[in-house]
Amino acid sequence: MLPVALDVMGGDNAPEEILKGAFIAADEDIPVILVGPESVLKDVDHPRISKFFVSQAIAMDEDPALAVRQKKDSSIVRGVELVKDLKASAFVSAGNTGAVMAASLFRLGRIKNVSRPGIATPLPVPNRKPVVLIDAGANTECKSEWLVQFAHMGSIFSKQRFDIKQPKVALLSNGEEAGKGSILVKDTYELLSREPTKDFEFIGNCEGRDILTTQADVIVTDGFTGNVALKTLEGSLKFFINTLIAVLSQSTELKELLEKIFSVLAPVATQLDPETTGGAMLLGVKGVSVISHGSSSAKAIVNAIKAAYSMAQADLVTKLEESFN
Amino acid sequence: MLPVALDVMGGDNAPEEILKGAFIAADEDIPVILVGPESVLKDVDHPRISKFFVSQAIAMDEDPALAVRQKKDSSIVRGVELVKDLKASAFVSAGNTGAVMAASLFRLGRIKNVSRPGIATPLPVPNRKPVVLIDAGANTECKSEWLVQFAHMGSIFSKQRFDIKQPKVALLSNGEEAGKGSILVKDTYELLSREPTKDFEFIGNCEGRDILTTQADVIVTDGFTGNVALKTLEGSLKFFINTLIAVLSQSTELKELLEKIFSVLAPVATQLDPETTGGAMLLGVKGVSVISHGSSSAKAIVNAIKAAYSMAQADLVTKLEESFN
Repeated sequence: MLPVALDVMGGDNAPEEILKGAFIAADEDIPVILVGPESVLKDVDHPRISKFFVSQAIAMDEDPALAVRQKKDSSIVRGVELVKDLKASAFVSAGNTGAVMAASLFRLGRIKNVSRPGIATPLPVPNRKPVVLIDAGANTECKSEWLVQFAHMGSIFSKQRFDIKQPKVALLSNGEEAGKGSILVKDTYELLSREPTKDFEFIGNCEGRDILTTQADVIVTDGFTGNVALKTLEGSLKFFINTLIAVLSQSTELKELLEKIFSVLAPVATQLDPETTGGAMLLGVKGVSVISHGSSSAKAIVNAIKAAYSMAQADLVTKLEESFN
Repeated sequence: MLPVALDVMGGDNAPEEILKGAFIAADEDIPVILVGPESVLKDVDHPRISKFFVSQAIAMDEDPALAVRQKKDSSIVRGVELVKDLKASAFVSAGNTGAVMAASLFRLGRIKNVSRPGIATPLPVPNRKPVVLIDAGANTECKSEWLVQFAHMGSIFSKQRFDIKQPKVALLSNGEEAGKGSILVKDTYELLSREPTKDFEFIGNCEGRDILTTQADVIVTDGFTGNVALKTLEGSLKFFINTLIAVLSQSTELKELLEKIFSVLAPVATQLDPETTGGAMLLGVKGVSVISHGSSSAKAIVNAIKAAYSMAQADLVTKLEESFN
């Protein structure tokens, strides 16, 4: 297999945590090609790590389309090009999400018959395999036909990535009953009900409160709602943990309690840790492009590299192409 | 002051918890008029509780518009009518949200110049006054002008209810930067930036992850997104607590730990308990109409009655009318 191209300059913890992640992945036999400036990479030495030097980097807050157009020698643009030029099997970045999307779309191109690529984010859910939320933010305004395509793409991803035979698909709405929802949701509901179920089984609407307890393997929504739901989830869990820590840090006795709780919660926390789910994947482009969280640690990067590598091995793009053919 | 009309038949815990709540409120000197069937109310006896008998009840899962049209002698329809007929100062129900909305809209009517009533839900946020989310679910499809009106109504509510002098308003979006968001959000951003700030200060976009840590006093969104965000929040906090309980119930030793934690967390939990914030309020109709959560306990009902009573005392409707005049 070709190596995984890794954006060394992307994310809040770049380049240190990114490099650390690359070494761990390479130690576990995954070939990696680091994409970054020579100054950062010159001392890197590992039998399964190669390097590709670039002169530019796209910042987290740059305008994505503009940055991709202007910074042709950036780690994001070059990294995606390595996939296009068959020098890498997949691309991983914890950098500017919009820029990774734009570069992937412009350089790799869309899969035939796919209207819009969508971001598939696996959500860790306890006692079961991760649930795939799609679209988690690529398309702010959506058409119902696109959501139907997200259902197909998310299901194929869920199948390949988490080995789920016939994924169950739910539509995120403001009520469980059929007929509840925005015009977009109602139209999509209609279409999904009539859709041939070769890729998935449509199980109806779900609500925000079902996301962590859902029966579904794939939750379909537009990119605006998906982003709001995902960040609300993220914010509230972070908030709860911080509250727990703050309250239990008030005295030495309580601090001991906190340590005890965390040691007991650790295995559960691992199950729930978004860093273990391997990053979001841009589905619908002709290549494997993985977007890791901006705050990714080395661990998140390792898991993103593994996810990218396994999706390249599983030939996810061909499977998507076949389904849309 | 006129009594608060209370729907005895609304909610998952009706009529027991509702009646319990009514008694506590009445003991605290708030006059209440119970609206329910004679069979349920016949033995109720309290100097500050009066009764209004009805022959029908609207179930939680009934079609709201249809139910309100057909069940003219239901507790929801009659309760709202008591407000209209100046027999009650406000109406409180933990029943079918859509039916309360429909009855309030049809029977009380809209405030002049208000395009659409919106649901304002106070969210408990630690170390500060509650944040008002509007629209939390009344209008699935919205126009930008309506969102601007929600900003005004939410701010006036925030002022009266939580004594905030110049509420800060944020717009829920998929990115903090100006220019991020759906067409609706972008248009609303434009309008809010130009809006005279007599009622509030517009502070820009906020994201899902900011809801529990926001600087804003009012978060404006459409009813679809508001519902998804609210329920995601609700679901994830419930999920976290259940996880904590499940993990710490595995042994006697851990159970002791759990009790200790909960005793320490209790004051914080009270601060965060949605039951203490007094229910959601339908703003924009000519009367005070409070929608309590379907799972409301007696405590939630007491706080909803108090909130309704204090909003009637503060003459919230007149303040809204003045602002829209």
